[in-house]
Amino acid sequence: MKLFDGGKAPNPRRVRVFLAEKGMEVPIVPVDMAAMGHRSEEIAARNPFRRLPVLELDDGTVIAESVAICRYFEELHPEPALFGRDAFGRATVEMWQRRLELGLLFQVAAAFRHTHPAMKDWEVPQIAEWGEANRPKAIEFLGILDDHLADTEFVAGDAMSIADITGMIAIDFMKPARIALPDGCRNVQRWHAMLKARPSATA
Amino acid sequence: MKLFDGGKAPNPRRVRVFLAEKGMEVPIVPVDMAAMGHRSEEIAARNPFRRLPVLELDDGTVIAESVAICRYFEELHPEPALFGRDAFGRATVEMWQRRLELGLLFQVAAAFRHTHPAMKDWEVPQIAEWGEANRPKAIEFLGILDDHLADTEFVAGDAMSIADITGMIAIDFMKPARIALPDGCRNVQRWHAMLKARPSATA
Repeated sequence: MKLFDGGKAPNPRRVRVFLAEKGMEVPIVPVDMAAMGHRSEEIAARNPFRRLPVLELDDGTVIAESVAICRYFEELHPEPALFGRDAFGRATVEMWQRRLELGLLFQVAAAFRHTHPAMKDWEVPQIAEWGEANRPKAIEFLGILDDHLADTEFVAGDAMSIADITGMIAIDFMKPARIALPDGCRNVQRWHAMLKARPSATA
Repeated sequence: MKLFDGGKAPNPRRVRVFLAEKGMEVPIVPVDMAAMGHRSEEIAARNPFRRLPVLELDDGTVIAESVAICRYFEELHPEPALFGRDAFGRATVEMWQRRLELGLLFQVAAAFRHTHPAMKDWEVPQIAEWGEANRPKAIEFLGILDDHLADTEFVAGDAMSIADITGMIAIDFMKPARIALPDGCRNVQRWHAMLKARPSATA
């Protein structure tokens, strides 16, 4: 098994943080996304969508998509459970994983990719108006998230899950996307600081 | 248990098709999204993001997000398995579910929401340039999907899964989004026709 990694980008990082929370180590093949390594034939032969990360198993079969790779690791090493424990728990993790990805990470990514000068060769066409439109969507999401986190230590119940990992990465990604966490979001601040203090945050 | 449904929109439909494939029946509470029923206090009290569908359990707890609701049903009624059977199968379903959602359904939805006159009060701001930019992305995706479907009956292996449901719904949604399936996509045509012929397609 080997993991074609993509460095600092949110999806490669999500898998590395997940592995760190599991206490797992997987051989890493670094790929330089800044040099467009994800568009190489080496990656295209494994993932026709030319995205990272990609996990190659020992028999040569491939699993792409960060959350699919994490789910495979969860199956191999169920503890600690990061996709929930029982039926309701697993549904709740899926719900918050999706909310944080589709309602926050994607908005932050759109703001970054459509407004940052360094992204103009990555996001074609780069549409500044669309990037700007995503900033208030992200801020609105954070307000609802803050209300939710008033009552819970982790976002999907009383244990760490992949939804927290996605959330931490989304909030970290707000810095290059130039979106500031509103001062009133005290619960989000507490939650994010708690996640950043875990050893996995530096993975 | 009761399901607050949202009619024709892709996410409510995804859950109904899933239930039909499972042979399950759940009491339905119809909500009129055309009349903005998803923005009502009745829905906001259950889902602060004001989106449908929403599943309410008998104890009053709520699961939102279509895929999370489907996963809960999978836990309650494992057969037929629609999220995969073993570790590799579950990862493969997750991979294709994400590819079809993030790489096709979302592009089709963006084209629809940002270019259709009926959506101007739904998608604010409506940015036609962004809607148009998504059409070629969807077409490019379909070409890669067509190559993949040359070798497989269902998208994630030899059995129906939620990834096929997401794909069928995305392709159906291309009509109002005014995206035509390219003539060369024979494998996608065959796969879509096979899915449309199943009784679940009308759910």
